[in-house]
Amino acid sequence: MIKLHYKSDPLKKLEYEDAIKLSESFLDEILKKANKDIRNMTSYVAMAKGKGIRSKILMISSSDENGLITVDAVKAASAVEILHLATLVHDDIIDDADKRRGIESVQSRFSKKEAVICGDYLLCLSYSLISDINNKYANEKNIKFISEFANLVSNICIGELKQFRNNANLNLSIIEYLRIISGKTAALFSISSYAGAIIGECEEHETRLLLKFGRYLGMIFQIIDDCKDYEFSEEKALKSVKKDIEQGVVTLPLILSMTKHKELKTLAKNAALDNKISEDLIHEVYKSGGITDAVIIASKYYEKAKALLFKLNNSQKSELLLNILDEISDVYFNLLKNAQF
Amino acid sequence: MIKLHYKSDPLKKLEYEDAIKLSESFLDEILKKANKDIRNMTSYVAMAKGKGIRSKILMISSSDENGLITVDAVKAASAVEILHLATLVHDDIIDDADKRRGIESVQSRFSKKEAVICGDYLLCLSYSLISDINNKYANEKNIKFISEFANLVSNICIGELKQFRNNANLNLSIIEYLRIISGKTAALFSISSYAGAIIGECEEHETRLLLKFGRYLGMIFQIIDDCKDYEFSEEKALKSVKKDIEQGVVTLPLILSMTKHKELKTLAKNAALDNKISEDLIHEVYKSGGITDAVIIASKYYEKAKALLFKLNNSQKSELLLNILDEISDVYFNLLKNAQF
Repeated sequence: MIKLHYKSDPLKKLEYEDAIKLSESFLDEILKKANKDIRNMTSYVAMAKGKGIRSKILMISSSDENGLITVDAVKAASAVEILHLATLVHDDIIDDADKRRGIESVQSRFSKKEAVICGDYLLCLSYSLISDINNKYANEKNIKFISEFANLVSNICIGELKQFRNNANLNLSIIEYLRIISGKTAALFSISSYAGAIIGECEEHETRLLLKFGRYLGMIFQIIDDCKDYEFSEEKALKSVKKDIEQGVVTLPLILSMTKHKELKTLAKNAALDNKISEDLIHEVYKSGGITDAVIIASKYYEKAKALLFKLNNSQKSELLLNILDEISDVYFNLLKNAQF
Repeated sequence: MIKLHYKSDPLKKLEYEDAIKLSESFLDEILKKANKDIRNMTSYVAMAKGKGIRSKILMISSSDENGLITVDAVKAASAVEILHLATLVHDDIIDDADKRRGIESVQSRFSKKEAVICGDYLLCLSYSLISDINNKYANEKNIKFISEFANLVSNICIGELKQFRNNANLNLSIIEYLRIISGKTAALFSISSYAGAIIGECEEHETRLLLKFGRYLGMIFQIIDDCKDYEFSEEKALKSVKKDIEQGVVTLPLILSMTKHKELKTLAKNAALDNKISEDLIHEVYKSGGITDAVIIASKYYEKAKALLFKLNNSQKSELLLNILDEISDVYFNLLKNAQF
């Protein structure tokens, strides 16, 4: 059983910045003090933890009218980050990925077999944490929440499966692509905002709004991420860049390019057959405006997400969520600029 | 979201035999009506479902003074079976097993990668079901239960990891072996009896007793299973028999034999190096009484488990649990007989 060493009242409220710090130390504590038999892997996972975007979304979604966040919400935020790490560990098995955020992936460093167990363990840890939240929420609503949480996670599995099965499917449509990422990345983002809303005891209306906001944010995040594969150098992106393309994962920029220029399909097919990065293909995707078009679709989700924030009756919350939205979108504005050539 | 089609009152009480039938139809329904994208795998898993021992333990543990079982307990029993199936799907990846209960394993039939996702999905389904149980249990106690449930599952992961790491470890001690199976098979059995106790709203004393009983039962079950690897023909055991031995998994019969006859270690080492079944080794384990000694250890757990049943204040429940205990132990009495040569 994970016992977090933060002794104070679980309903104690913290400023946003302090909540972020606490969530980071919770996460470190959980991963570095896991059961001794699995600690070698979980401590390793801790080295590749990200910026905690999902955790931030959860905490902000839970915040009160003064922008304050309870220790319980911070705990739940750690649970969501652990869940995210669990999906990454299993994703890297499925994608045969050697690297993750600048270091070797768990499956490569240890073994595929140990990575299966590590992911399972992290998944259990996440469930354990989320359900161990203060008894204050031990009511009908919260039981429903845990079950919803599990359902949303099972959606992520389906998304992962669909993505895997559509690997190298050059006939993947825009709609199918959007469905896949909606079930994967966007599902995890919406779990985060939804969990925050439940813990923050938001009204039904606000809860639904936050759930939707999380989904839009996830869509933007994934589209941008898929554009990055075509954009950045390996150093910058801290994961095996072009790996997705190399693996034949067909993402939005390529789909959009192929829609305009059918002949690109042959180039893409050859790249997949050769199982190597085709600089030509990347260049063609650029040239045909695949990146720009993908970013335009992301911008539609941006507008929708922003519109939702105006409907929130909590200006502090709106502002903090807008910051997250813009943090992700800054990259996309840069992309738009770079893509114009 | 899984919606079971059993419309009646979740607190409706059923006779044991009817509860078993209902739990089987729930399980079928869940697996065959899973999300359409993953249904090909879950329906396949349904073909290799077992005898539902864990499910029975849960239902009996939950039964009232008249031996009746609520529909909620039946639902939870399906959740535990799904959890069990999830662990099997991932186990088969870790053990490279080609067969499971007479048919091809999921990892072999589909792929290791799809099997990772299938196991994750089943795990989520199990959590979703267990937490979706009637709101009647939506109190402080039940929240603790779901968190305990997740903790027990994480123990299973640790057990699996330890077993994997001790593959071919010919220096594995009796105690270490017992610890591994306690964290694996026995953990799942004790989850079942514990969940039953919670749903049956048993007193604290009885809950603890049932948790312990489940653990002992699991210990017996695993020891007997490990003896079977040395005993039965492939046809009889319906899984890749001798696979464990072939894979170098060191289990109790071999450990006990090697304790008596040090020279067996060389034979075992050679068998592991050759990566093939050594009929000689199996014969030597028999001859040195490794099976008999293992069964004697199982019988100690049998006595402990039986003693616990006498302390139960519910004679119906004691009797039904004793039946399960004897069902498992019948095999072991036969083993003892066969082992005498």
